[in-house]
Amino acid sequence: MDKIKLGPMPYMSVMPTLLVGANVRGKPNYMTAAWATVACMAPPMVCVAINKARYTAKGIEENKTFSLNVPSASQVVKTDHCGLVSGTQEDKSGVFASFYGNLKTAPMAKECPVTIECTLFKSIDCGSHLLHIGQVVEIYADKACITDGKPDITKINPIVYAQATYFDVGKQVGRAFYAGKAYKKE
Amino acid sequence: MDKIKLGPMPYMSVMPTLLVGANVRGKPNYMTAAWATVACMAPPMVCVAINKARYTAKGIEENKTFSLNVPSASQVVKTDHCGLVSGTQEDKSGVFASFYGNLKTAPMAKECPVTIECTLFKSIDCGSHLLHIGQVVEIYADKACITDGKPDITKINPIVYAQATYFDVGKQVGRAFYAGKAYKKE
Repeated sequence: MDKIKLGPMPYMSVMPTLLVGANVRGKPNYMTAAWATVACMAPPMVCVAINKARYTAKGIEENKTFSLNVPSASQVVKTDHCGLVSGTQEDKSGVFASFYGNLKTAPMAKECPVTIECTLFKSIDCGSHLLHIGQVVEIYADKACITDGKPDITKINPIVYAQATYFDVGKQVGRAFYAGKAYKKE
Repeated sequence: MDKIKLGPMPYMSVMPTLLVGANVRGKPNYMTAAWATVACMAPPMVCVAINKARYTAKGIEENKTFSLNVPSASQVVKTDHCGLVSGTQEDKSGVFASFYGNLKTAPMAKECPVTIECTLFKSIDCGSHLLHIGQVVEIYADKACITDGKPDITKINPIVYAQATYFDVGKQVGRAFYAGKAYKKE
């Protein structure tokens, strides 16, 4: 197999498409983000990398709280709009209807089927970006997107991000902690 | 829209399916991981959350290097096997053929179409997990998976992870920094 060196770059195979919610100067703001994942099981934590110059960065610093909101594929226009336009140029508080949870300062988008409410644990300075690690204080989900008490991906229809393109989730190719049982040494 | 509180948990809508490569006691070991993303643009960094008790954690601590390997959907059995079995129970150095890059201590899986070679920048203690942030020193890709000098998701066919299930990537639902141009205030 011929390997080519592509040089150092911020590559990841697939990512979630999310909206980071933060109050900036007392108003909800939503920013599109994909550089996010789970950071810890116990306590539950998530992380998201945000450019230091972004409007949202000010809100996270100000309140030490933020939210991650999971839009559906049907919300791709609104979602991408929040990545095209900065809160410094446009008041984005009306793009989504907002609600607040326990923390009172982390706005969440009502239209998003799942939202993650966080307190800031640490912001790690990586260079151009701060990696904000947040402790999850609550998960909110639409009743209609729940199966057996858990968020159901077929009902949520989240957006996968890769190569500056939004995709939906495709077909199942295996069950985790199960598919590997078929492994045989070559 | 009725919202239900699901309580705090380590939720993320979709994640990449990766293999973390690390030398442990001089031998390559691969561990399945999904809690990973990009952490910074400049310099390019990625991060991955790993339980402190894992065998791979020892290798990262030992060498201060690791790799993230992107398997194809066709490699789901081998990939899941590396999540089912610990390096403490089984020598996993033969599951994938390994190659080394610039760093000499971060093993990469030849069969994986894209591999990311990293030096450890910081390990953040979040509780049960360490969030390892790595600076990307090189990206290696199979010639056959490149289009116009860039990794091509349709050729790589990476695995999306969500709800303990592996999925492939579905159809395009929009272009980033473009779809949002259709947004009109309601």
